[in-house]
Amino acid sequence: MKRSELGGLTCSLAGALAEVGDAWSLLIVKELMLRNRRFDGLAAQMGVSDSSLAGRLRRLEDLGIVARRAYQDRPVRYEYRLTEKGEGLWPVLVTLTTWGDRWQGRETPPLVYGCVACGVPDARPHLACEACGALLSPRAVTASQSPDMQAERARRTAGPR
Amino acid sequence: MKRSELGGLTCSLAGALAEVGDAWSLLIVKELMLRNRRFDGLAAQMGVSDSSLAGRLRRLEDLGIVARRAYQDRPVRYEYRLTEKGEGLWPVLVTLTTWGDRWQGRETPPLVYGCVACGVPDARPHLACEACGALLSPRAVTASQSPDMQAERARRTAGPR
Repeated sequence: MKRSELGGLTCSLAGALAEVGDAWSLLIVKELMLRNRRFDGLAAQMGVSDSSLAGRLRRLEDLGIVARRAYQDRPVRYEYRLTEKGEGLWPVLVTLTTWGDRWQGRETPPLVYGCVACGVPDARPHLACEACGALLSPRAVTASQSPDMQAERARRTAGPR
Repeated sequence: MKRSELGGLTCSLAGALAEVGDAWSLLIVKELMLRNRRFDGLAAQMGVSDSSLAGRLRRLEDLGIVARRAYQDRPVRYEYRLTEKGEGLWPVLVTLTTWGDRWQGRETPPLVYGCVACGVPDARPHLACEACGALLSPRAVTASQSPDMQAERARRTAGPR
């Protein structure tokens, strides 16, 4: 199976990975979150060639994750903004970063989030239940698969490889 | 910059992406979370060749994300388990899946998490502040970069590309 075929599975994770399951897409999204929105700034920070960056930005535009906006007329220059769909990746960046902080043995995390609501300087974002606020972890949840997903999984493991 | 060089940046996101910034690593972690732990089951579900799957599993083992355990002696057969580091990727899978649910226009999400603490069948996991429980989003946080990260970013954007 190729990465482009992942989107066809009954699995929202596979679908998400078909779109942003590569290091560069998420790094571009992170740079845009940090307001590094212009081509030269992105190229400098990421250390990639212009053509490679342009291709990746075009792909993110096609997926509706990034929108291009002219900020100058002559010559025309563009900056890149996250769409609502792109901003929706923020929790993915935060959880990946938190995992990186934990397992890369850095003494101080490079990026810390403060909470605007209560003012605490390190909010330590974690996954919580919307109903009761309990901390969620693999052991604190039950997982239910939809009938479609169950059927597809049974088909894949039963059929010829 | 190559993906393998990302780990050298002062950025825990880049470090995390150097390890699991590809679609297949996270899909393997998901299968192991769903207790699909044997080689044949993984190969069947993921639709990849044996050699490709073996290489990916070996890499995850080298990174300390997966541990191999013999479940049968003659012939010896292994199953794969997530280590603590591997289980730590659960919030990444959940946030990616939630994003996929939201933006792929499925009517019912393939996988729903119930909360063990309060018993609600759909816990809708979201990022919350550890201190006050407030829902966190890009607009509900302040982001502070460490001096190391600030210096590195200034250096990269100032220097020759």
